[in-house]
Amino acid sequence: MIQSLPNNRGRLLVACKDQPGIVATISSFLQKQGANIVQSDQYTTDPEGGMFFMRVEFDWSTKGDDFNQIREDFQSIASAFQFDWRMERATRKKKMVIFVSKENHCLLELLWKWKAGELHVDIPLVISNHPDQQEEVESYGIPFVHIPVEKGKKQEAEQKAIQLIKEHEADFIVLARYMQILSPNFVQSFPKKIINIHHSFLPAFIGANPYAKAFERGVKLIGATAHYVTDDLDEGPIIEQDIMRVNHRYSSDELRVAGRNVERIALARAVVWHHEDRVIIHGNKTVVFS
Amino acid sequence: MIQSLPNNRGRLLVACKDQPGIVATISSFLQKQGANIVQSDQYTTDPEGGMFFMRVEFDWSTKGDDFNQIREDFQSIASAFQFDWRMERATRKKKMVIFVSKENHCLLELLWKWKAGELHVDIPLVISNHPDQQEEVESYGIPFVHIPVEKGKKQEAEQKAIQLIKEHEADFIVLARYMQILSPNFVQSFPKKIINIHHSFLPAFIGANPYAKAFERGVKLIGATAHYVTDDLDEGPIIEQDIMRVNHRYSSDELRVAGRNVERIALARAVVWHHEDRVIIHGNKTVVFS
Amino acid sequence: MIQSLPNNRGRLLVACKDQPGIVATISSFLQKQGANIVQSDQYTTDPEGGMFFMRVEFDWSTKGDDFNQIREDFQSIASAFQFDWRMERATRKKKMVIFVSKENHCLLELLWKWKAGELHVDIPLVISNHPDQQEEVESYGIPFVHIPVEKGKKQEAEQKAIQLIKEHEADFIVLARYMQILSPNFVQSFPKKIINIHHSFLPAFIGANPYAKAFERGVKLIGATAHYVTDDLDEGPIIEQDIMRVNHRYSSDELRVAGRNVERIALARAVVWHHEDRVIIHGNKTVVFS
Amino acid sequence: MIQSLPNNRGRLLVACKDQPGIVATISSFLQKQGANIVQSDQYTTDPEGGMFFMRVEFDWSTKGDDFNQIREDFQSIASAFQFDWRMERATRKKKMVIFVSKENHCLLELLWKWKAGELHVDIPLVISNHPDQQEEVESYGIPFVHIPVEKGKKQEAEQKAIQLIKEHEADFIVLARYMQILSPNFVQSFPKKIINIHHSFLPAFIGANPYAKAFERGVKLIGATAHYVTDDLDEGPIIEQDIMRVNHRYSSDELRVAGRNVERIALARAVVWHHEDRVIIHGNKTVVFS
Repeated sequence: MIQSLPNNRGRLLVACKDQPGIVATISSFLQKQGANIVQSDQYTTDPEGGMFFMRVEFDWSTKGDDFNQIREDFQSIASAFQFDWRMERATRKKKMVIFVSKENHCLLELLWKWKAGELHVDIPLVISNHPDQQEEVESYGIPFVHIPVEKGKKQEAEQKAIQLIKEHEADFIVLARYMQILSPNFVQSFPKKIINIHHSFLPAFIGANPYAKAFERGVKLIGATAHYVTDDLDEGPIIEQDIMRVNHRYSSDELRVAGRNVERIALARAVVWHHEDRVIIHGNKTVVFS
Repeated sequence: MIQSLPNNRGRLLVACKDQPGIVATISSFLQKQGANIVQSDQYTTDPEGGMFFMRVEFDWSTKGDDFNQIREDFQSIASAFQFDWRMERATRKKKMVIFVSKENHCLLELLWKWKAGELHVDIPLVISNHPDQQEEVESYGIPFVHIPVEKGKKQEAEQKAIQLIKEHEADFIVLARYMQILSPNFVQSFPKKIINIHHSFLPAFIGANPYAKAFERGVKLIGATAHYVTDDLDEGPIIEQDIMRVNHRYSSDELRVAGRNVERIALARAVVWHHEDRVIIHGNKTVVFS
Repeated sequence: MIQSLPNNRGRLLVACKDQPGIVATISSFLQKQGANIVQSDQYTTDPEGGMFFMRVEFDWSTKGDDFNQIREDFQSIASAFQFDWRMERATRKKKMVIFVSKENHCLLELLWKWKAGELHVDIPLVISNHPDQQEEVESYGIPFVHIPVEKGKKQEAEQKAIQLIKEHEADFIVLARYMQILSPNFVQSFPKKIINIHHSFLPAFIGANPYAKAFERGVKLIGATAHYVTDDLDEGPIIEQDIMRVNHRYSSDELRVAGRNVERIALARAVVWHHEDRVIIHGNKTVVFS
Repeated sequence: MIQSLPNNRGRLLVACKDQPGIVATISSFLQKQGANIVQSDQYTTDPEGGMFFMRVEFDWSTKGDDFNQIREDFQSIASAFQFDWRMERATRKKKMVIFVSKENHCLLELLWKWKAGELHVDIPLVISNHPDQQEEVESYGIPFVHIPVEKGKKQEAEQKAIQLIKEHEADFIVLARYMQILSPNFVQSFPKKIINIHHSFLPAFIGANPYAKAFERGVKLIGATAHYVTDDLDEGPIIEQDIMRVNHRYSSDELRVAGRNVERIALARAVVWHHEDRVIIHGNKTVVFS
């Protein structure tokens, strides 16, 4: 969601085993720092031995300690409670690298929202295994790198991409209909940092050609799933899904075209949520603070 | 959809290989009978060698030939074009037998719509493998038959059900969360006449415990699928699907409860469409004239 | 949502002017009482002089102070911060009185969810200006009171209803398609405690016959709105809205019938949220903690 | 919907008073021309004195008479039955002129679908009262004309626009968030040919600033309405509406931004349907053949 964020807005995400007093500890800590909690969501899977998840938005005092100090001071609490946590300035633009192949609807949705100020990221780079989108991408003032993936030379191509991503210090990667399967080596280089859009409501129609499969099955809904990429194809933690109604009049090709609308919107939502630190990955699922 | 239907309303459903002149032939035939076409939908999968599907609602002349005569006369056209067809009086109430187990939300949705006049069927019988719903069903003035399915004695139970269904001359059967797998013998006794509700958006989560599987997978949508029953479990032609949004806060049990709303509404829609002769089965898919 | 709630689950709702330290104060208070926060949501309209809203679910220590003591102790904090607040045992069943006229779809949805254990209220009474639903209501073991509203005698009828509601110590009132306009006197007797379902997506089609108006206007969506009742007809705080797609084939009457599905589902959601203390009224709006 | 249409595909739209034999007459006519009906939809508001609406897609014989001859020959039937009708080549690209002001989300959605081949129109011109979108539009190779609307000089501005539209022989006009009210003179120059997107689910929030009004009212859904423009502001025949869920966390400004998604999708659907000859205007409503 678009927001004109104050410069002193921070976000804290915490996951840990549930135990009494966490909320009080965190909120008291922030109060002592002179920070005001603007929004908080907290959820426990099970009060008896379950997991605790929390997201806090706060405005820190602009007079007292600065953000880095708060983050440093929080470390001792985090250690005591064994938090899995991160604290971010809300106004820091994350660096997002986009991968695309030939179809550009997901790419354009992201570029457009970026240009419209709905997606406050920096986009240092778009990488593609095809040259088709070069002109479009560069018209936004964004560098485009064509890294062809030749048969038997996927490793070299991925190495080149990994190096570029690291050089640009990207925070996360979006596969905007990138039609190559990434190797475990690539995926493990960016754990919990790669978002993919799959063109079906997973777990239906895993793998290639989901619209052709949907046509064969005669479904009355088609969908799309934005998820984090793991080593298991189409099995990573789901961030967002959406669907649209179809009927017997749709050919397989028409399903594919109609589905673009669902894909781009589901992906854009997931990217915004990821960027706004609304998502915690836990096991093979996500907690999404809306 | 509720309708105060005129007594002389007829419905014609036609499927055949596409060939020029079918619409003209059918509409001219009806005109000669003094019938007025009130609504018609026609769809061809492919003008070159595809399938032709058509649904016509018409009001026949109450002065001239009666409905049975029209149907009889239509036979010669149907033979010439090799139609797969049926012609029905719109006001004839189809006989619907409901199967249920313990959970009653789908059963109640159907009974309620029936009582409210939204579903113009006759319900000669509700059959269950459990006695739980007897009182509820009988309070609607509908006979309830408890046919337990004991281990190793499924065949006897099914035979009893088949006999009852045939005695009551049922037009179709609705499995309103009937938690038994029907044998091929049963299914083949009522081809294209058994509607089931599966508690997932098929083909996701085929088989038992779809909500538990949905919970494990961490999906952001749950769904339900109304389909005709074939020998392949959960693989029959889909009539209707629907979904609802869920999030990380839902336990497996809460998914199951929330899903009831989707199940009953998807099933009720499919039953109404089937009853109103809006569905043509073609291969493993349906054409639904909305 | 259905939940098998522990006996020591409490809920706290707080609204006040935003000021630093509220979350810390509330969570520290609960920690000192030995209570564990299970879920919390907090939202501030504007960090500078805005409103603070919070909902907390907590499990209090079954060894230490009991719930009433916690509530009593909280009063001093609440006074200091000028909280508008309430604290409830989650397992206490609220008493809900239903008003109905002739159409029963909303009534039946509530009764059914109640019987299915999806709505943990007590229903001491159903009141109607028509006798039609008596048998249905009594079949659920719930008393039915027929209070006709004769021309010029609305005041007497309302007085009778008010007296009954007070005798039964009802917590809230649901107008499940009650087709009478309540007087300001009645409304003011139960402030913030009357939920109505209006059969349009407000503010479209305020007043009588919204489906006829929707038909005239040729809308492509129809909807329903569950809202708290205030003196201004159809202008009270909205709790929930939903819609469904329609098209040119729907007659005014078919819109009315189709709309029943939307009405009953929107109303049921609003009632569950109200019952689960998820709604805070602020001015003419609601904060709904989902 | 995208379609690789055959060159000999035609579309026929008919509206008239219902009378027996229309379907037979039309289909027999097409058969005699050697045309094959590929799809047809027909709907009657009331068999007794109602209106008859029909849409037919047909492939004419490429050997025999050509399309213009068919259209000419149809005239005599049309006169006899007093049809309001049109017959179009499906492959003829209609000429669409877009009006835009400063916000470009609706404009870009149309340009993008156009470039992706999802919208088979020609766009001879984009007209705007602001210069902001010039670069964007021209990057698509489409001429952009800036016609400022100065106070008291609206008539001159409209005259200039009317002249340009007529010079380019535009088939229809899309107001893609054009923030000027058109004069009756302009509207009457292009009857049934101007499509507007209004940023609310009409008839709610007619007029200016619907998102601010939606925020004030505390609605739980926001919407958008694509409609034909008539002299009565926001009162023209509705083609399509859509909505999205919102909650108390949305500021007025966030509603406005979130609503962009709904606006552009509802408008794009309406434009595609208009272009594919799926819409018949009747009185203040539309019949949309899906």
